Amino acid sequence: MSKLTLVIGNKNYSSWSLRAWLTMKQAGLEFAEIRIPLDTPNSHRDIRRYSPSGQVPVLLDDDLTVWESLSICEYIADNFAPYLWPEDKKARAVARSVSHEMHANFFNLRYQMPMDCRGRYPGEGMKPEVQGDIDRVCTIWRECRQKYGQNGDLLFGEFSIADAMFAPVVSRFITYDVKLGAVEQAYADAIWSLPAMNEWVNSAALESEYLYRLPHSQN
Amino acid sequence: MSKLTLVIGNKNYSSWSLRAWLTMKQAGLEFAEIRIPLDTPNSHRDIRRYSPSGQVPVLLDDDLTVWESLSICEYIADNFAPYLWPEDKKARAVARSVSHEMHANFFNLRYQMPMDCRGRYPGEGMKPEVQGDIDRVCTIWRECRQKYGQNGDLLFGEFSIADAMFAPVVSRFITYDVKLGAVEQAYADAIWSLPAMNEWVNSAALESEYLYRLPHSQN
Repeated sequence: MSKLTLVIGNKNYSSWSLRAWLTMKQAGLEFAEIRIPLDTPNSHRDIRRYSPSGQVPVLLDDDLTVWESLSICEYIADNFAPYLWPEDKKARAVARSVSHEMHANFFNLRYQMPMDCRGRYPGEGMKPEVQGDIDRVCTIWRECRQKYGQNGDLLFGEFSIADAMFAPVVSRFITYDVKLGAVEQAYADAIWSLPAMNEWVNSAALESEYLYRLPHSQN
Repeated sequence: MSKLTLVIGNKNYSSWSLRAWLTMKQAGLEFAEIRIPLDTPNSHRDIRRYSPSGQVPVLLDDDLTVWESLSICEYIADNFAPYLWPEDKKARAVARSVSHEMHANFFNLRYQMPMDCRGRYPGEGMKPEVQGDIDRVCTIWRECRQKYGQNGDLLFGEFSIADAMFAPVVSRFITYDVKLGAVEQAYADAIWSLPAMNEWVNSAALESEYLYRLPHSQN
């Protein structure tokens, strides 16, 4: 039996950490956590102790190191919980496409509306270039739920890695009070009410660090 | 039998297209190509006809659309060529980690040294912040070859999706004449001499479009 350890950043701020953590929780795995607060004088050194890329999250499984949030999710699916991707090959392909799109895009949204689980800054960060990202996210949510999710709560029916990839976006939409259509709001509500999501958000609220976030200061 | 079509950008410039195309060639697949030159007045409209994200590459498999380069590679491995990921679970996890790291990072390298297969601009783009990206790429290449590649030519022994992800970086290192250590140079040579890579580069040389690349103009 392997002993899994997930190295993460602040729960309030580290959106990539949340993606891997939520996937592991939804897989029912037991794992240790090592939390390294970001943006301190020692952060870089401490993260480097575990992470070859210098970033969190990092998964340690005995002598194996796995990094990059989506790669960690793939590892969990590959080794412990194949049901984290849809069983149908076409649905699985689309789930991977939207997950990879999230992983490597949406820079305006990510920069102007950084994750801040416990913060509430209604209307902040809503620059014109952010709206395009929000529209694309909403289109993904609507189309996946309709085409592959049997119009249920989540994107592909049962919880999938695609849901984990978009969970931090749900948190952002709450923090910055982004107005959503009924279908997208129902999806956001479903993600926000997951017990594991609740656990993460409650832990984030108890953290003592406060990071000065540039985009807020510009408003 | 499905009919596969890959929608790509200019072969000379579209590094993401190369990643998917090379993976499909290495899998021995037959597929049609639709080439859409980038940065023309019609590019956006033409790409949107196929791509829900507005980006290339896009894979069409009958009525299924798969997008994002690494997601397309996963689809090829999942459906046609599982050997495109290492068989060993640990090696596979690391191959995915470096592939995802390439997919979502190395912004300085990508911006300052855009892919330009047929171009030769020795020394251009070599800003201080680019060196860190180059160093990290070289570390990945060295460590993967040593630990998982049996010190052979490629990163994980046989050709893998990780090699496809780094193939455009090899092209950049040639275009901008980046000096490499012996091990990294041997890797670059191995990628550059793949018959499929040759085919791509030769096609790129025959393309007539010339894109004005901002970083060059700043040197």
